[in-house]
Amino acid sequence: MSGSTIGTLYKTTTWGESHGKAIGAVIDGCPAGLSLSEEDIQPYLDRRKPGQSRYTTKRNEDDLVQILSGVFEGKTTGTPISLMIRNSDQHSRDYADLKDVYRPGHADYGYDAKYGFRDYRGGGRSSGRETAARVMSGAVACKILSALGVSLLTWTESIGSVKISSFDPEQISLNPFCMPDAKAAGDAAALIETCMRNHDSAGGVLVCRISGFPAGAGDPVFDKLDAQLAKAVFSIGAVKGVEIGDGFSAASSYGSINNDPFCSVQDQMSDEADGILHRTDSAGQDSSSHSFRSSIRTASNHAGGILGGISTGNDILIRAAVKPTPSIAQTQRTVNKNGEEVSLSIHGRHDPVIVPRAAVVLESMAAVVLVATLLTGMRARMENLKAIYL
Amino acid sequence: MSGSTIGTLYKTTTWGESHGKAIGAVIDGCPAGLSLSEEDIQPYLDRRKPGQSRYTTKRNEDDLVQILSGVFEGKTTGTPISLMIRNSDQHSRDYADLKDVYRPGHADYGYDAKYGFRDYRGGGRSSGRETAARVMSGAVACKILSALGVSLLTWTESIGSVKISSFDPEQISLNPFCMPDAKAAGDAAALIETCMRNHDSAGGVLVCRISGFPAGAGDPVFDKLDAQLAKAVFSIGAVKGVEIGDGFSAASSYGSINNDPFCSVQDQMSDEADGILHRTDSAGQDSSSHSFRSSIRTASNHAGGILGGISTGNDILIRAAVKPTPSIAQTQRTVNKNGEEVSLSIHGRHDPVIVPRAAVVLESMAAVVLVATLLTGMRARMENLKAIYL
Amino acid sequence: MSGSTIGTLYKTTTWGESHGKAIGAVIDGCPAGLSLSEEDIQPYLDRRKPGQSRYTTKRNEDDLVQILSGVFEGKTTGTPISLMIRNSDQHSRDYADLKDVYRPGHADYGYDAKYGFRDYRGGGRSSGRETAARVMSGAVACKILSALGVSLLTWTESIGSVKISSFDPEQISLNPFCMPDAKAAGDAAALIETCMRNHDSAGGVLVCRISGFPAGAGDPVFDKLDAQLAKAVFSIGAVKGVEIGDGFSAASSYGSINNDPFCSVQDQMSDEADGILHRTDSAGQDSSSHSFRSSIRTASNHAGGILGGISTGNDILIRAAVKPTPSIAQTQRTVNKNGEEVSLSIHGRHDPVIVPRAAVVLESMAAVVLVATLLTGMRARMENLKAIYL
Amino acid sequence: MSGSTIGTLYKTTTWGESHGKAIGAVIDGCPAGLSLSEEDIQPYLDRRKPGQSRYTTKRNEDDLVQILSGVFEGKTTGTPISLMIRNSDQHSRDYADLKDVYRPGHADYGYDAKYGFRDYRGGGRSSGRETAARVMSGAVACKILSALGVSLLTWTESIGSVKISSFDPEQISLNPFCMPDAKAAGDAAALIETCMRNHDSAGGVLVCRISGFPAGAGDPVFDKLDAQLAKAVFSIGAVKGVEIGDGFSAASSYGSINNDPFCSVQDQMSDEADGILHRTDSAGQDSSSHSFRSSIRTASNHAGGILGGISTGNDILIRAAVKPTPSIAQTQRTVNKNGEEVSLSIHGRHDPVIVPRAAVVLESMAAVVLVATLLTGMRARMENLKAIYL
Repeated sequence: MSGSTIGTLYKTTTWGESHGKAIGAVIDGCPAGLSLSEEDIQPYLDRRKPGQSRYTTKRNEDDLVQILSGVFEGKTTGTPISLMIRNSDQHSRDYADLKDVYRPGHADYGYDAKYGFRDYRGGGRSSGRETAARVMSGAVACKILSALGVSLLTWTESIGSVKISSFDPEQISLNPFCMPDAKAAGDAAALIETCMRNHDSAGGVLVCRISGFPAGAGDPVFDKLDAQLAKAVFSIGAVKGVEIGDGFSAASSYGSINNDPFCSVQDQMSDEADGILHRTDSAGQDSSSHSFRSSIRTASNHAGGILGGISTGNDILIRAAVKPTPSIAQTQRTVNKNGEEVSLSIHGRHDPVIVPRAAVVLESMAAVVLVATLLTGMRARMENLKAIYL
Repeated sequence: MSGSTIGTLYKTTTWGESHGKAIGAVIDGCPAGLSLSEEDIQPYLDRRKPGQSRYTTKRNEDDLVQILSGVFEGKTTGTPISLMIRNSDQHSRDYADLKDVYRPGHADYGYDAKYGFRDYRGGGRSSGRETAARVMSGAVACKILSALGVSLLTWTESIGSVKISSFDPEQISLNPFCMPDAKAAGDAAALIETCMRNHDSAGGVLVCRISGFPAGAGDPVFDKLDAQLAKAVFSIGAVKGVEIGDGFSAASSYGSINNDPFCSVQDQMSDEADGILHRTDSAGQDSSSHSFRSSIRTASNHAGGILGGISTGNDILIRAAVKPTPSIAQTQRTVNKNGEEVSLSIHGRHDPVIVPRAAVVLESMAAVVLVATLLTGMRARMENLKAIYL
Repeated sequence: MSGSTIGTLYKTTTWGESHGKAIGAVIDGCPAGLSLSEEDIQPYLDRRKPGQSRYTTKRNEDDLVQILSGVFEGKTTGTPISLMIRNSDQHSRDYADLKDVYRPGHADYGYDAKYGFRDYRGGGRSSGRETAARVMSGAVACKILSALGVSLLTWTESIGSVKISSFDPEQISLNPFCMPDAKAAGDAAALIETCMRNHDSAGGVLVCRISGFPAGAGDPVFDKLDAQLAKAVFSIGAVKGVEIGDGFSAASSYGSINNDPFCSVQDQMSDEADGILHRTDSAGQDSSSHSFRSSIRTASNHAGGILGGISTGNDILIRAAVKPTPSIAQTQRTVNKNGEEVSLSIHGRHDPVIVPRAAVVLESMAAVVLVATLLTGMRARMENLKAIYL
Repeated sequence: MSGSTIGTLYKTTTWGESHGKAIGAVIDGCPAGLSLSEEDIQPYLDRRKPGQSRYTTKRNEDDLVQILSGVFEGKTTGTPISLMIRNSDQHSRDYADLKDVYRPGHADYGYDAKYGFRDYRGGGRSSGRETAARVMSGAVACKILSALGVSLLTWTESIGSVKISSFDPEQISLNPFCMPDAKAAGDAAALIETCMRNHDSAGGVLVCRISGFPAGAGDPVFDKLDAQLAKAVFSIGAVKGVEIGDGFSAASSYGSINNDPFCSVQDQMSDEADGILHRTDSAGQDSSSHSFRSSIRTASNHAGGILGGISTGNDILIRAAVKPTPSIAQTQRTVNKNGEEVSLSIHGRHDPVIVPRAAVVLESMAAVVLVATLLTGMRARMENLKAIYL
């Protein structure tokens, strides 16, 4: 209700402003007995880190995680894990002239309307920097999921108008756009170079695929698994649309096509040769990690692994639309806090495209929801209760 | 966490199965002093009611609301409002042969995987019938919003491949598809006739526009207004995608275009002649109801009324993709609970397209979130606290 | 936050006013697969029912429970269980003259100050009648606990100044005061007869003992098990004090005495001969039902089964102070809503002592918290997660 | 649910272990525009600080607060306030021999039963040190309350068997026991000296009185104001009992005495000469700060300022029983984690009585609940909503 906490059984609270002393996350509800160190978390922060290519901001944020609590002798104790990153390399003076002006595409005006004033340095609390705190919690969630045989893979499906047309997972880490298609990545580079020359910016679409997630997790009605994923992903500042499975394409399909036939796992294997990912046909599902009990799956996966809010055991597929970076150097028209029209040209070091750095944020939000879902789901049956307490 | 409650300050809990004795909603946190009677709620249920055209199920559900608590001498008391609809016209025997079979596109398998067994009659708890309970709460929320000068309008943007190409709000209630374009409605009728002949079904896209909602409402970070709306809308069973404002289109736009310039209200008026709704260019925003204090708006509205999770005072625009009705009479391939492959042909009375009946459900979910947001937002400033308590 | 819901994983929402059409409870999160019928719940309502002796109100409330949802073929489905009691025998006219007057000891004034007006018939929402809804949820919780080997016993320790001095559990159901001491029950009857002659009322102290509850349940810090029990018990309108274990007596003890030595179960057996219940020394703990894994207990039980907010596996002991019934026929001095002093004599049918009817309410609140605690506790360790999902 | 967060609109999350790197609190939902600096918080920490007299532990904890976020240009921004204290002076080696042993009166065994292992250094997460984090949030809450004319005063009513018999608020800060009675403080000193010689410890009773709190705040049914206060106070590790107003004394009173007559404020003034605090008659209520609108109060205050869970505008009175410090140097009998009986003598530096240091913790928990209550209460009426949004 105060906005900075997500989850109930696996609860993450983030704090900190872009140009404050530090940012952090507190994870409450991580099960005890997970081995955890800074080395488990740092690689996730590094995926989000700026300055890794000429297409991201030159800001130099080291983003070194410190674990302040909740881990003892290398293992989680079940008590809150406090994670902190000290801020550095802050050019607060870059922002002084933005104090009274509302940047288009940013939350400045909303914060003033809500709170009466705001920390205007680099967006303050509404800065994308806050997502570093989410990534720390996501890294812990991913480690829990991994211990349960669940894996996540996130890639860029499009940058501006450039879409992938092939799917090679190896490629994702080999280009600055996290695209599983080397040719598309080259085209994206050209598109972003043009943006940079025009002092403009671009957006794109990200996909996160979760494999090995058990069937029967998620809650009915308001807390459906897809609803929780949608909320978590939409809470990333730049996201303007979310789809599960076929998403908007399903709206123009037919029941006879969109319905995924149930089958036994053996049957599913052979069907997969057809390719099941919608639109791009670029990503098959990796069923090799299904280690759970049920042998029932669906032959196709238009539903994206969730029906009626509950997982089916198939891969979960989430697509997120990321808008173009709102901070651009072009002169823009806006108003100041007195409602007077002013011209604005935003200086400083901004990403011409935020999409590749947002990939690990999307993955983190998904992981945080999935862990919570598994923790909650344990209590659905009397027999589980009896198994633990009798 | 148990799934059937949404909201904190304006909290709605629904209960009931498709073929149980009754379904209901309990609203806790409705402010005291709102005049309320069954007559305020019934028209919303009637919009959702089946049997209104040849394109919806022939099931005859009267869906008469009873207020059981929370209203005294015609006004809400601030205590829980219990609303109930007795079920009737239940053909439970239609479902007996579905007991052990997993209908494609339905939650049957997920419920069995989660709970070990399920009420198989008409989908039980996962039935679309549950949404009647949401609509009762939505009707109350809409009345609160109306008292604050906020209005909601919901229409169908597409049925299958048929999209609207003009926007006449008068038309919405004049055709069975809730389309603001008479010609498109005619084309949709032809498409659905074909579906019916083929024992098939179609989906579509709904849009909800909220006008008059104040700037500065919504919370930062995880509880962003768009995140909460997305969750609420995604919790409607058939929804597979949600967009705010330009949604996925924003991903292929540029910052220089997608950024909405701030302006004073006067400037906004003249800009509106250009038409601001993305894609269809069919729906301008109705700024006549803006009665709030701020005179700042954005000239265009690609953002759909929300930036950084906080409302801007512009119209809020939500789009939802609704999948084709999964219950179709065509023979489908699936498995039973033993994993054995079986053929299935679903009899009974099913909607060839659920989209028009879902419009009021979408509107209800939006209203429920918006009321909660306004109630929460009251506490953002010390000066508001002082105004009420000093 | 809106007040009528308790719990997260086992969530109970109550609704209804004293003189409205009905009252009810919705339980969300009951595990699937528990056999449940009205016959499981009715006996709990009957323990709370008025008119059972000359010492309780003569109001004739049948209080017949109806299960409206959540049970299919005799078993809980995991979806919301809606429970309802139709109101009857309402003498609303008894209350018309209380419309503008604030009854001492009642919530009338607070409701007006908060909501601006109130349903004044029989206390409306603040009536003790609301507790019938709690008892319905408590009955379900008790059935879950029973399946896990946990049992609850509740008795009256004192009525006014009359305290028990012996403990015979057989006696509890044999006298109208739920006292485990026949002589004390006789003295209590005399005390209440005097109250009735004086148009006055009395209070008392209740004790609830939970046996067989496993060690290691409950959460640290703010959600300690004792804190959650205290909240639940204090939410019963007439309760003014709560103790766990020795309670206020511990404050005047010494560490060397108050510390309960840990021992193995065998050692505990012999120690119990000493009698461990504080103050009255009247109730030993029933360790025969300890069926959980650990063989560690404490030799004495000053702590009342909870240390650091987490259960120790010993009996949990809760004491609650119940104030005298505020509705008395004596003339009382008060003010009306204009602040003018008035005399008030409350007619109608009121309990001279509410304590015995409150026993099952206390037991219900404890049960509701304990079920929630067990459901939550399942997720504390990675190994539990792995056991269920791998 | 994970235990380390309290509140919804004013939400406090604490983290940290006794011997970890740091401890901290994150406050989410503090209204914007409150002036705040470390200087506002440090005095509250200093009241809790050890080493202030010969009757508290000699541990040297500086407990210097750092504000890491949420404050900009000296004012709260409405975003999370992260507060941290670096740990120092840790004698972890004092605890190595406690690794496998369950200290009587401590949470050691419960943590092992729940989590499988624990941070055994100084109690880890279950250490009283965690309360320093609560005090930081309490200090902020007290500043908010102060701006609304609400003040809190906390004192010691008894230490072991020594009770106060007079009430001079000036005295509270003049003796090491926070007693408003110099003579009782002297007797308490003698009692504690005896404890120290015996390697034993004592407990006591604390009272917190809140003045100036408006009528009409608090929620009905499960979230009653007294229920929320009871939970918050019971969440302090050493608390074993809580009373509101007359508490357990009410149970042996009569309705005709226990009912507080309503009156207008003028009448109340003259009644107060009689003295209204129960039992000790030592603390009158300070009505001079009642600055709220209503002129209705009660003449006596047996109810302790709350009826039906809602504030009456009278002083709120909370009493808490604090058990004797469980860490004592006397040899105690207990078991190790294998269930083998062992002798234990706890070395290190422990408080012979924790009561005076707990006073500010009690006050903090009350303040945190009261701020949340006021924030929530703003939304009870349609007219308040309209006042802010129209």
